[in-house]
Amino acid sequence: MSKGEETRQAILGRAFELANVVGVTGLSIGRLAEATGLSKSGLFAHFGSKEALEVAVVEEAAHQFVQAVLVPALREPRGEPRVRALFEHWLAWGQRPGGCFFVGASAELDDRTGPARDALVRACKDWIDEIAKAVRIAVREGHFRTDTDADQLAFEIYGIMTSGHSFHRFLRDPVALDRTRKAFERLLASVRASHPGRSR
Amino acid sequence: MSKGEETRQAILGRAFELANVVGVTGLSIGRLAEATGLSKSGLFAHFGSKEALEVAVVEEAAHQFVQAVLVPALREPRGEPRVRALFEHWLAWGQRPGGCFFVGASAELDDRTGPARDALVRACKDWIDEIAKAVRIAVREGHFRTDTDADQLAFEIYGIMTSGHSFHRFLRDPVALDRTRKAFERLLASVRASHPGRSR
Repeated sequence: MSKGEETRQAILGRAFELANVVGVTGLSIGRLAEATGLSKSGLFAHFGSKEALEVAVVEEAAHQFVQAVLVPALREPRGEPRVRALFEHWLAWGQRPGGCFFVGASAELDDRTGPARDALVRACKDWIDEIAKAVRIAVREGHFRTDTDADQLAFEIYGIMTSGHSFHRFLRDPVALDRTRKAFERLLASVRASHPGRSR
Repeated sequence: MSKGEETRQAILGRAFELANVVGVTGLSIGRLAEATGLSKSGLFAHFGSKEALEVAVVEEAAHQFVQAVLVPALREPRGEPRVRALFEHWLAWGQRPGGCFFVGASAELDDRTGPARDALVRACKDWIDEIAKAVRIAVREGHFRTDTDADQLAFEIYGIMTSGHSFHRFLRDPVALDRTRKAFERLLASVRASHPGRSR
């Protein structure tokens, strides 16, 4: 990684932390200059505009999410264990200080148009597709029933997770995590093959 | 309703519309003055502070939600029909221009403390309790199984709805509504009593 790349990475890391507190739209070159101690003109040289900064932050968030959630889950065995690992690492991601970046950002940007929203939609769709892909593998491995609708299941897992996030972060319900896991277990039980491994 | 009450109501209606666009935290006495054509000093006389305005807007949103979703559902027969009606009116609420006020507001306020957040949490908990109550009635009416965990089911219905809202409003998935209804039907099927009406 070149020196310029390293600097950019360090700035992006700080910008991501900042966006977790003030939101994507609350982020500005000026605020980032304060947070990093760099000059506004130097930051403009790196990003060009507030909009480009927003896009870069969304992409940084997506990158961190992949590293924290997807990469470790891909080390798990194919099938149900991997679906479970995706879920558990995702749960841990939402428990980080500030909660899930994507929940806040999507509520902020849903009525806007432009490249920041597009980047965020792309990141969320990629993630939902990863869940559906893991479900399809679990079907092929014989862990889930062959009539499982993978995209529908991904939608429902997404719902359990967002409900859990709301109950935990917003309603501060002490049993939010239990409810989240219980709902997930119930959903998996409804698609689990009665003779796991046989259709492999 | 007195003249003062009527004026207050009209202002609140406008403030609620405005908050749907700019967010609860984006709302200010100045912005509301522009939107209503009233003087800032007159609005201060009505609300006293930005914080009191935020609380009043959250309470207005809760009132409108009750009128649009809860009141018509309570006209339906007790049991599964009422649970379905709650769901369908809720779905319609989320389809209004600007989407669901509560989804945006809870993402905005989840890290804050204070009376506006408290009012919002109260409104959401009241709503979740209404769903759980309707589920309990459906158990008593013999429509749902006697081992149904009403609070857990309310959590899961909430998840389906928030997932549906994200897929529709944010990801603009053309099949979001179908997925939402399908998930709801599957959830109801999992708790439906095999001999409806018998445990009444």
